[in-house]
Amino acid sequence: MSSTAVLTPAELLSHWQGLRRVTRRVIEVFPEEHLHTFSVGGMRPFAALAAEMLAIAVPMAKQIAGGESTEYEGTPPATKAELLAKWDEATAELDTWYAKVAPERFGETITLFGQYTGTVWSQFFYAIDNENHHRGQGYVYLRALGIEPPPFWDRQ
Amino acid sequence: MSSTAVLTPAELLSHWQGLRRVTRRVIEVFPEEHLHTFSVGGMRPFAALAAEMLAIAVPMAKQIAGGESTEYEGTPPATKAELLAKWDEATAELDTWYAKVAPERFGETITLFGQYTGTVWSQFFYAIDNENHHRGQGYVYLRALGIEPPPFWDRQ
Repeated sequence: MSSTAVLTPAELLSHWQGLRRVTRRVIEVFPEEHLHTFSVGGMRPFAALAAEMLAIAVPMAKQIAGGESTEYEGTPPATKAELLAKWDEATAELDTWYAKVAPERFGETITLFGQYTGTVWSQFFYAIDNENHHRGQGYVYLRALGIEPPPFWDRQ
Repeated sequence: MSSTAVLTPAELLSHWQGLRRVTRRVIEVFPEEHLHTFSVGGMRPFAALAAEMLAIAVPMAKQIAGGESTEYEGTPPATKAELLAKWDEATAELDTWYAKVAPERFGETITLFGQYTGTVWSQFFYAIDNENHHRGQGYVYLRALGIEPPPFWDRQ
């Protein structure tokens, strides 16, 4: 590793997938009857937040890897089982597309979803930061519903 | 930059400080009378969450830079003005201590706060992820109080 490398692309992906496992556990413990409806302060229900994460991660990696412009779509799957299935599908697809991004491209500037311009690393960071942001909101929803969220520090 | 470098240490710090500016704006718009008391689902008030962020960022960078073991302390400042002053102080201190961490040390494994072991990069990522997590919760508190949070994407 170079002396200027904070971490490698593989380490970043592994870190992200660890955080995605936490998000998956939030979906798992979320009561099905509240997944598409429960809100605090008029915010989107957790299914919509999870759908946004799905609409960003793989489409982003795919665009970066292949240059294909994918539309941002975030329609929430109808049931918890379908959402979890989509999540698992995305986990595998993220690994596949991310692996196609050459390591030397992380500093390259790219425009995604037809409008967001930044370096490849900053695009992936946006996806990760945004997932943390919305998962944290899911924790509040769970607490408001009287449910213990999964531990944030457990990434296994 | 090496072909294996996702980003440089300076870029990571700059990214973090951008996110910290968002957190600062959450503190700024948070109503003083609710800062230490308002809760959803029995969770800690936002002053306590912000105090936790303060208890992690600089003490973490300081320990990594100098090896000094600092105790994890997160007593919230009594007023919003004091919290903002502490935040700004921490912004400058984070720059100072972070700059003392040699770039080649980001892959080194280190134990912080006497108990958390991981690479230097993963320690900084924990602090950033945790801040995103709790700031996101602050957004829910603000919405529940009928207040528009600052835009998440604006890091200036």
